[in-house]
Amino acid sequence: MRLLVRWKILFLMLVLSNGVIAQNKLQQYQNVNFSRVQITDDFWKPKIEKVSLVTIPVCIDQTEVKTPRIQNFEIAAGKRQGKFKGIFYDDSDVFKALEAMAYSLKNHPDAKMEKKADDWIDLIAAAQLADGYINTYYSLQFPEKRWTDMSMHEDYNGGHLIEAAVAYYDATGKRKLLDVAIRFANHFNSLFGPGKRDWVTGHQELELALVKLYKTTREEKYLKLADWLLSERGHKKAVGYTWTDWKDTAYAQDIKPVKEQKEITGHAVRAMYMYTGAADVAALTGDEGYMNAMKDVWEDVVYRNMYITGGIGSSGGNEGFGVDYELPNENAYCETCASVGMVLWNQRMAMLTGESKYIDVLEKSLYNGALDGISLAGDKFFYGNVLASTGRQARRDWFGTACCPANIARLIESLGNYIYGFNNNSLWVNLFVGSNTAVTVNDQVIPVTMKTNYPWDGEVELGLSPQKKTRFALRMRIPGWAQGSAVPGGLYNFQDASASNITVNLNGKKIEYTVDKGYLVIDREWNTNDKITLSLPMDIKRVNSRAEVKANVERVAIQRGPIIYCVEGMDNAGKTMNLVLPKSSQLVISKQMVLNESVVSIQTDATVVSISANGDDVKTEKRKITAIPYYTWNNRGAGQMLVWLPQRILDIKVN
Amino acid sequence: MRLLVRWKILFLMLVLSNGVIAQNKLQQYQNVNFSRVQITDDFWKPKIEKVSLVTIPVCIDQTEVKTPRIQNFEIAAGKRQGKFKGIFYDDSDVFKALEAMAYSLKNHPDAKMEKKADDWIDLIAAAQLADGYINTYYSLQFPEKRWTDMSMHEDYNGGHLIEAAVAYYDATGKRKLLDVAIRFANHFNSLFGPGKRDWVTGHQELELALVKLYKTTREEKYLKLADWLLSERGHKKAVGYTWTDWKDTAYAQDIKPVKEQKEITGHAVRAMYMYTGAADVAALTGDEGYMNAMKDVWEDVVYRNMYITGGIGSSGGNEGFGVDYELPNENAYCETCASVGMVLWNQRMAMLTGESKYIDVLEKSLYNGALDGISLAGDKFFYGNVLASTGRQARRDWFGTACCPANIARLIESLGNYIYGFNNNSLWVNLFVGSNTAVTVNDQVIPVTMKTNYPWDGEVELGLSPQKKTRFALRMRIPGWAQGSAVPGGLYNFQDASASNITVNLNGKKIEYTVDKGYLVIDREWNTNDKITLSLPMDIKRVNSRAEVKANVERVAIQRGPIIYCVEGMDNAGKTMNLVLPKSSQLVISKQMVLNESVVSIQTDATVVSISANGDDVKTEKRKITAIPYYTWNNRGAGQMLVWLPQRILDIKVN
Repeated sequence: MRLLVRWKILFLMLVLSNGVIAQNKLQQYQNVNFSRVQITDDFWKPKIEKVSLVTIPVCIDQTEVKTPRIQNFEIAAGKRQGKFKGIFYDDSDVFKALEAMAYSLKNHPDAKMEKKADDWIDLIAAAQLADGYINTYYSLQFPEKRWTDMSMHEDYNGGHLIEAAVAYYDATGKRKLLDVAIRFANHFNSLFGPGKRDWVTGHQELELALVKLYKTTREEKYLKLADWLLSERGHKKAVGYTWTDWKDTAYAQDIKPVKEQKEITGHAVRAMYMYTGAADVAALTGDEGYMNAMKDVWEDVVYRNMYITGGIGSSGGNEGFGVDYELPNENAYCETCASVGMVLWNQRMAMLTGESKYIDVLEKSLYNGALDGISLAGDKFFYGNVLASTGRQARRDWFGTACCPANIARLIESLGNYIYGFNNNSLWVNLFVGSNTAVTVNDQVIPVTMKTNYPWDGEVELGLSPQKKTRFALRMRIPGWAQGSAVPGGLYNFQDASASNITVNLNGKKIEYTVDKGYLVIDREWNTNDKITLSLPMDIKRVNSRAEVKANVERVAIQRGPIIYCVEGMDNAGKTMNLVLPKSSQLVISKQMVLNESVVSIQTDATVVSISANGDDVKTEKRKITAIPYYTWNNRGAGQMLVWLPQRILDIKVN
Repeated sequence: MRLLVRWKILFLMLVLSNGVIAQNKLQQYQNVNFSRVQITDDFWKPKIEKVSLVTIPVCIDQTEVKTPRIQNFEIAAGKRQGKFKGIFYDDSDVFKALEAMAYSLKNHPDAKMEKKADDWIDLIAAAQLADGYINTYYSLQFPEKRWTDMSMHEDYNGGHLIEAAVAYYDATGKRKLLDVAIRFANHFNSLFGPGKRDWVTGHQELELALVKLYKTTREEKYLKLADWLLSERGHKKAVGYTWTDWKDTAYAQDIKPVKEQKEITGHAVRAMYMYTGAADVAALTGDEGYMNAMKDVWEDVVYRNMYITGGIGSSGGNEGFGVDYELPNENAYCETCASVGMVLWNQRMAMLTGESKYIDVLEKSLYNGALDGISLAGDKFFYGNVLASTGRQARRDWFGTACCPANIARLIESLGNYIYGFNNNSLWVNLFVGSNTAVTVNDQVIPVTMKTNYPWDGEVELGLSPQKKTRFALRMRIPGWAQGSAVPGGLYNFQDASASNITVNLNGKKIEYTVDKGYLVIDREWNTNDKITLSLPMDIKRVNSRAEVKANVERVAIQRGPIIYCVEGMDNAGKTMNLVLPKSSQLVISKQMVLNESVVSIQTDATVVSISANGDDVKTEKRKITAIPYYTWNNRGAGQMLVWLPQRILDIKVN
């Protein structure tokens, strides 16, 4: 009964808000959509172009030519004879590539790419069964077994279909894929839900997708369905699970009801997608249960289970979370998709709370753990992202399980989603990315311009130009790292944690400012051509771990701004495992090219242990070494790499 | 038609041989059954007792109390309410424990253990379905799905049932379990076979078990069925396989017909059991096709894919074989069960060919790769057996997949099977184990006594005491290692390969002898109280790998007799990764206790690289180090270990 009342209120809110999806009291602001943000800087703009020109064509080639993913749809569409080939979740890669293409078309219209997308969409539509079901693995092999095994990703694939459909509709106005997605969602809704059959998503994703479908169609049933799917977990309802050994329900966060969860468990990407969906539902339904649970879970992730790169999921065995503080470097799993998921979830947490710490974590995952997943040339990928290598790792063209390439592609193409936020009386600046946008605040359209060489430089110039004087609060994030905090919760700490000098100028004059929830707040009447300049201190920071992280005892990492550094063999006579960075050595910045990427590198004197010519003896000497941004490693061939340098000789191995 | 003729001949042979299973012309000799061999030495006798008194009770406790393996049978027998718990192959652990108990009862009669076995057998018999089917995973959960998925180990479990049943019948004369096994085999035979349904065993084992059942029951159909199962492979007949990702048919040696196989592929234990079964069938049917194929496959194993410990299956990913010569030490998989399988297969190859090289490999796997799988105290186990450790490995009480403990237990209890062989004109001595037996050769019962401190000492005294003069050839193995050959095929080589001094005395006088197929042959009339003394040279050998084995470049291993050595941190100031063994250092033997095990250890001067007190510098010094038998490592706690020592400083790592 109470549930019904809640839904009625929601419906009323929607009607009253004149069709705009209501912001619930739980959500402090909403983000400016990437389609309204023009990125102009020297850091992200070339990366977005590279994804459009290189990465997406790679995804298309792999999906259509080098692997049978599109072929499965051709067979299902009756255009070709043959059998299903591949893995049961391969359809999702087609959808995720389409989603990346949709964002790319918005950033860089391209008739050829759009034609390719339309061709794929025709196949997908033709492959859909009359009742709305779509999944080539089942429909081509054993259609009678569909919806019998919750581990088989029918839901996950469907979620990515919906995400692609919404993105493509937004980008092009074309409804064909959206209609496929709606038919699929209606089909699912006809089978599952209160009073119908139970369903526990085996790989969460459909939840967040259904919220997107709700926002696009304004059909309340999809939001209800997302909420219901979340409520299905934690009641021992999972059935099937023939695919994996992971019958352990912690693997898919199914051990407790979502609202009772306090600790992070299991598969990292599943967890991130689930909490993203839960945050989306909470924002729209006003359900504080999700939020309360997620705050605890988030602390468990960030305080005890996150790498300094923002990577999560330390264990390859479950592609997920292990024991608290067990964060091995050489065997770090840190799936690229999990870092993408961290960006998604933390954005939602930030909007729900208005607190900057979520963006601090988002920024860390984005510039380090996620960005490391794609090569500088845009054509090779890491599935996992280690923090130390003896040379075994190499970026790869593609993967049997190919979730990561299109995932990092869609993230970079939609980067504009993460920069600005707004509500009716405030403008949020979350990330520092040179860009232009226009945001409606206090019923006025405010043109906004940001100029910066971030992350290499801490100067950020923000231009606000309302046509007429308009009062609103500008809320610009002061990154935690600029205030002496390496991460929320103290898992990592700066050796020198003294607060640095942050200055803010308004129209050329230094001003005092207040800080609220991690944001500098300037609440005033803004005028045409107002300029705010934020200067963030770009000191080089030595970072230590909490003692509980055994892998990092007596070790130091290097950070500057949001960028985590590593030493790579390439810059250091081929070896890094023989380097010691004493506490006393001076760290200085330098400019360097890593392939075509112009970066700030860091130089310092290290203790280097090396072998005598005859192999009988060892010696110790001082030598200048170079650290490069972590995300740029393994772009000049495979070799040794190290993020956490020993501060003294910790061990000695001769073989 | 020709097949029929062959079977008729076989049947005729059986009839003519007066009930004794005929030796086919392909088989040069047969082994003396362990039940007729009394082991008396200081090496194996205590180990066999430990298995009876410690290991088997551990297996019983784990199977019955700590895990629900017996409970599943109780439920299936209707003695208890509940659901199946565990993994679909858990039944096999019950059977394998029973098989070990059967051998133990023969070695050490124990009424309490026999009562336990009888209780289990009652449960198993009550759990069998009316039609002979038995498998608690299916019968308790989805009996309608039985025999639909060849990967689900119904065949494998059934094979271990048969092995246990035959062993228990041999040990006790009790038929109850044998009758269960016969009903199961008849049930399987009613469904599968020529003109009936196809079946490709997903985990080979049933083949060799059916040969045992044939030998016990003399029912030809079981031998036929084993032969037919082997002939099913390599024709793309496998169906089901929902369990694993390993739809790749190479994993289960199903890519080619067995008789066309030339290379070793896939899962190591599956391969060993299959070739053991194929050898058993070949010995009885005279089918040279299996033998020709297996000779090539064996060379592929021993020449390119075997560790110096006799361990096989280098790769954890498939629990099996990888790329030729890719034999990583720290990540060696080398499953204990695969070494057990090497013992089984090589015994069959030796009996088929009469060549000693197979026993050389059997001995290597037995004393090193297999024996390492069980702790000196008999209560802890290794599933995999690495050849280098930074301290991560620890022997464990039990495993989720618990194939190894009972497997090594049954091998040790049945060790007597591998010592002696005979045909009507020859007596074979394959292994040097202090023991007594009586063998019928040339229609005379020949009492045989062997005395030796092998493997620590190379003196072997063999006493033959026929009641009357009897002519036969004594064939005593001259180990390859005593003739300068580290392994057949040259994958490993002694640095000093000069042949050593082997002497043979007959009744106190040195005699000349001839060598045939690796055996010293003394063909004469033997008399009461004849004594032959074989003196094998126990030089300490430095071993190198072929250059193709990248993991061992510029490294040396130490061998003495059949024993491979390792250095363990425990004896060497806690560390082994900082040790270099220069070519010039002298190796000398020493006596040492490892826990309660008295062993010959080896001492030498090493180059030791160590860290200065303040952690800023390193130094190099000479220090005496100790190497212990590989099979004894990790019995005094976890720590570093190394089999392949560098001969110079190969690398330098400080963290």
